Amino acid sequence: MIVVMARGSTREQVNDVVARVRGLGLDAHLSEGEERTIVGVVGAPLPPTLDEMLEVHAGVEQVVRITKKYKLSGWDFHPQKTRIRVRDVVIGGDDLVIIAGPCSVEGEEQTVETARAVKAAGATMLRGGAYKPRTSPYEFRGMGRRGLEILARAREETGLPIITEVMTPADIAQVGDFADVFQIGARNAQNYLLLEEVAKAGKPVMLKRGLSMMLEEWLLAAEYVMAQGNPDVILCERGIRTFEPSTRNTLDVSSVPVIQGMSHLPVFVDPSHAAGKRALVPALALAGVAAGADGLMIEVHPSPDHALSDGAQSLTFPEFAALTPRIARVAGAVGRRLPVGEALAAV
Amino acid sequence: MIVVMARGSTREQVNDVVARVRGLGLDAHLSEGEERTIVGVVGAPLPPTLDEMLEVHAGVEQVVRITKKYKLSGWDFHPQKTRIRVRDVVIGGDDLVIIAGPCSVEGEEQTVETARAVKAAGATMLRGGAYKPRTSPYEFRGMGRRGLEILARAREETGLPIITEVMTPADIAQVGDFADVFQIGARNAQNYLLLEEVAKAGKPVMLKRGLSMMLEEWLLAAEYVMAQGNPDVILCERGIRTFEPSTRNTLDVSSVPVIQGMSHLPVFVDPSHAAGKRALVPALALAGVAAGADGLMIEVHPSPDHALSDGAQSLTFPEFAALTPRIARVAGAVGRRLPVGEALAAV
Amino acid sequence: MIVVMARGSTREQVNDVVARVRGLGLDAHLSEGEERTIVGVVGAPLPPTLDEMLEVHAGVEQVVRITKKYKLSGWDFHPQKTRIRVRDVVIGGDDLVIIAGPCSVEGEEQTVETARAVKAAGATMLRGGAYKPRTSPYEFRGMGRRGLEILARAREETGLPIITEVMTPADIAQVGDFADVFQIGARNAQNYLLLEEVAKAGKPVMLKRGLSMMLEEWLLAAEYVMAQGNPDVILCERGIRTFEPSTRNTLDVSSVPVIQGMSHLPVFVDPSHAAGKRALVPALALAGVAAGADGLMIEVHPSPDHALSDGAQSLTFPEFAALTPRIARVAGAVGRRLPVGEALAAV
Amino acid sequence: MIVVMARGSTREQVNDVVARVRGLGLDAHLSEGEERTIVGVVGAPLPPTLDEMLEVHAGVEQVVRITKKYKLSGWDFHPQKTRIRVRDVVIGGDDLVIIAGPCSVEGEEQTVETARAVKAAGATMLRGGAYKPRTSPYEFRGMGRRGLEILARAREETGLPIITEVMTPADIAQVGDFADVFQIGARNAQNYLLLEEVAKAGKPVMLKRGLSMMLEEWLLAAEYVMAQGNPDVILCERGIRTFEPSTRNTLDVSSVPVIQGMSHLPVFVDPSHAAGKRALVPALALAGVAAGADGLMIEVHPSPDHALSDGAQSLTFPEFAALTPRIARVAGAVGRRLPVGEALAAV
Repeated sequence: MIVVMARGSTREQVNDVVARVRGLGLDAHLSEGEERTIVGVVGAPLPPTLDEMLEVHAGVEQVVRITKKYKLSGWDFHPQKTRIRVRDVVIGGDDLVIIAGPCSVEGEEQTVETARAVKAAGATMLRGGAYKPRTSPYEFRGMGRRGLEILARAREETGLPIITEVMTPADIAQVGDFADVFQIGARNAQNYLLLEEVAKAGKPVMLKRGLSMMLEEWLLAAEYVMAQGNPDVILCERGIRTFEPSTRNTLDVSSVPVIQGMSHLPVFVDPSHAAGKRALVPALALAGVAAGADGLMIEVHPSPDHALSDGAQSLTFPEFAALTPRIARVAGAVGRRLPVGEALAAV
Repeated sequence: MIVVMARGSTREQVNDVVARVRGLGLDAHLSEGEERTIVGVVGAPLPPTLDEMLEVHAGVEQVVRITKKYKLSGWDFHPQKTRIRVRDVVIGGDDLVIIAGPCSVEGEEQTVETARAVKAAGATMLRGGAYKPRTSPYEFRGMGRRGLEILARAREETGLPIITEVMTPADIAQVGDFADVFQIGARNAQNYLLLEEVAKAGKPVMLKRGLSMMLEEWLLAAEYVMAQGNPDVILCERGIRTFEPSTRNTLDVSSVPVIQGMSHLPVFVDPSHAAGKRALVPALALAGVAAGADGLMIEVHPSPDHALSDGAQSLTFPEFAALTPRIARVAGAVGRRLPVGEALAAV
Repeated sequence: MIVVMARGSTREQVNDVVARVRGLGLDAHLSEGEERTIVGVVGAPLPPTLDEMLEVHAGVEQVVRITKKYKLSGWDFHPQKTRIRVRDVVIGGDDLVIIAGPCSVEGEEQTVETARAVKAAGATMLRGGAYKPRTSPYEFRGMGRRGLEILARAREETGLPIITEVMTPADIAQVGDFADVFQIGARNAQNYLLLEEVAKAGKPVMLKRGLSMMLEEWLLAAEYVMAQGNPDVILCERGIRTFEPSTRNTLDVSSVPVIQGMSHLPVFVDPSHAAGKRALVPALALAGVAAGADGLMIEVHPSPDHALSDGAQSLTFPEFAALTPRIARVAGAVGRRLPVGEALAAV
Repeated sequence: MIVVMARGSTREQVNDVVARVRGLGLDAHLSEGEERTIVGVVGAPLPPTLDEMLEVHAGVEQVVRITKKYKLSGWDFHPQKTRIRVRDVVIGGDDLVIIAGPCSVEGEEQTVETARAVKAAGATMLRGGAYKPRTSPYEFRGMGRRGLEILARAREETGLPIITEVMTPADIAQVGDFADVFQIGARNAQNYLLLEEVAKAGKPVMLKRGLSMMLEEWLLAAEYVMAQGNPDVILCERGIRTFEPSTRNTLDVSSVPVIQGMSHLPVFVDPSHAAGKRALVPALALAGVAAGADGLMIEVHPSPDHALSDGAQSLTFPEFAALTPRIARVAGAVGRRLPVGEALAAV
């Protein structure tokens, strides 16, 4: 860490900073330039908020952190790309993984039918919400336990592993009885106690990016899971909040290569929540794959016009079936493979 | 609700929309213009996601919601400004309420000393965190139960009611044993199950605005509390996330008059978290009062340079004591009163 | 246009609105519901700011515009996709167009050498700045006329048409003597008088998206050019300003399919300015193509470490040559063709 | 400037950076820690883009600029607050300055009448647009020269100095024949050649903040004026673009104290453009004054319902007359004076 003293800071102020640093068991190196004095802080480990502590000292102009705040999620700590096995599916490997399914589980027929359709079209995991976070308390909030049972039934029928959202610690045990992967939604992305509790359940966790989360904050949220001894975190970009109203959120497709430069964790793209409109989903899905995403998460519904949630952004079965061969071709163009891709691409 | 059909939509598509509306027990009025057909939806109550349901119908260009999604928090439902009594303090009345105290409870001496200092300077409530949400899992996360006991001790000494954050449902009972007001932090502002559980504890709830929450979403989060039968919600603007890096967040001071036009709930301003820098706190505090806020929440610490969290934005005792008379004068200029204001303003 | 009167608005207020509408030579249809009265405005053409005019009337709650503000750039006006011929290059057709070259023209050797290298790798147009907008007045601001002459020399050598930025009306004639396409930079995207003047020069205009421009505003800026009788506008997405600091700007890749739904104008993606970092350019370029962009604009420099501007985001010759075959493959996967693509893709 | 080399950077990469620095006539000091090597760059003046130049070198992780890019606008260069005399009005002194008037000059009667009304209520300068930037080319764009003549007539009648917008270099001479202060609008805030040309006209320039301008960029735009030898720049905060749709823009009231910490230039607040809605203007005006603004710019119109532009955000005469005594009281509370304030405050 480097502390830049303000022009005109006093000798006493510099000494204060040095004393503070040394009081913490660290060492301080002084470098006095013509205009400014710079204090280099050496030693490890640095307290995580050392920059804040030093910034408030009188005479300090700027504190520059050199080491990153995230550790377990960074390449320094784990120089191999993380691969996560979920039943027969490998996430983070050469194969692109497509998770598809309805926003909400609304009934057994709807869910099993969707599972069959998305599997036939190339999806290798099933999504579906049994507990739904809704902006308004007056909206449909999911079928709860019955929804989980239906998901399990669909898995039995198709063999697709299932991912479903958990919203509060009290539900973790129950959701864990059914889910293969826990999903933490965007609104809970900084619900730290939920992250810690879900980590302890010992299953992989997909962590959606919060609407206004910087990438470093996202990795630090992943650290909450990993610091509990659970290394299996999957990140999922689903759009951020910006001034542009024509999409529900703004898909930050750059987050894919940037995260891949910072972290060994797999990163997915959810074009459905980013777009908010069915017609845009294919273009964003293809863009995500071209940018290097390890997988996609796409909402599909047998009859989106009658969905109880997110119908506007859900694909129909034929739309999804028309999209996957295109995904397979783009995946191939960037050196990835969609497992059933050869067959599909030949369509 | 008004459904605008696209230019060139077919008779059949219009009929479909009308059938859907009628199928929900509502009525539909058709108005056929030269260029477009418009379907007016009449009846009550409208399903909360009716706009989403209709938007996805083929041939629909735009759906315009006329009634608001929020109900209990709006003026239509409750035409008097909400006043909340917390021990001897009235929130939402003519008197401006200043809540002050340390970011984190770090010890009994620190907390009691701060409580005395802020009371002497004009504060009427004490804040202090026993459970702290931190961006990184490696930072100081609060003293927990011991912190709550210390807050209670400070209340005993000074008579100041206390407000403190609760982060997860499992802590509600314990926090409720001590706190006069529950605080829900910005990162949990859309943690809906926490909102519902905390509501049931039957004490007032201060709901901070999430970093990327639109105002309507903020009121809908308040509805989660109110729909449980707890009408005592206090809103607190603490800055939103924008592109501007010179402040920790961007204080959206306009939210004060806009919310006051939408809702009867009291609204506070937290200049400390918005600014992120001590030197900016006074200007933002005064701006908040001038904009009409019902109160302020300000971080104060006996020795900010050594605070375990948020030191950079905490005022010292003398800084806070110098600010409150200025607050009293601005409050007076806009027709509010700081209870101990006359004495202070004479300083 | 639909005017929704507030609940409790008076008969007189409704009459006022109707009178205003009729006073403008338009017709007004009243629809009185149980809760609210709605005024439909019929007739054409509607004054462009009619919504603003009506919003301010007492008793009005909301005004909903149904027809779009943009005209010439919309599909209604021009139902065929715009194709623009620039010497031998067709923009907006089946072939993907890659524009490449240095940020700034720095000398003849640098520019001609770059032109040859990018042509060999598959680019079909040359970019290069002779007049550079710089955030600080103390930075290198381009070679001016000499830069234009160098670009013309590079065109002579390679046959590549050239595109270069014009920043002020006084330079239009001179830039027009050399350029095949005028570029309007992001900072001038709402410099309306420049747009009108450049339109009159009768050459195609590439209009970069402003850092905080909504898509409708972007099309309205294009209308400034088109309303002068110049239909040849190319849009170029280059990232918007958001809270995320890890990229120079946030590439809004969704703008490609959204604009293509609104407008017949070709839309390009500039991954270099969006990323701000060389290592991210390939992923963003591929994402742009996968999302359906009609072309790319990429910065390439013989020695980026020594570039006078934007070196950090410029590709080297080998990097660019390694990228174009990948672009060709993704283009092929989404049904586009890079003219020299077959040869490249075989590499 | 400090160059932080990446962990694992080679000796050769460090040497390269040092050689580059020395090749520019500067000196480099090496500090080799256990984990990383740091290169301190010493000497003056540093090339303005030195950080960009060094960032692209192989092995460099981060470059930290210590000196600020802005010079003339900073306190280091000019340690006294800038005061600007415009006829009898002093901007940047103890007195708060209120500029008021219509968005557009629409006729002589409208303008002169408004000038009289705002003067009577406490305004000391008159605003009015003769050349109007409009988002759509199909809207009213101002009366041009005739509008300037009308403004001059209103000045003759009332003695109020006038400020009006100039949009393109070709209009500078003509606008300069009438205006006391040039206004540069938000959309032209980075139209650098306009800034340089307007600077040469030798009159004060009010520079509105661009919708997505960071504060440092705003000061750098001011430098474009000041570097031409014109020190008389007034900054004006008018809201930035964020995700929040309830106001036209988000007033960044923090920019007032932050800019005052960075720069000696006076800073105004324009509550009308920030709010976009008449009812919010008073709260934002008062907040701006409480935050320490040197003045306000407020839109006032004799009959806002019939204004040709920005009617929704313009105050009526009685509304403005009711606001100024409140402004005077808040100004007094924060140690500023509204010249006619005593009389008004007594109202």
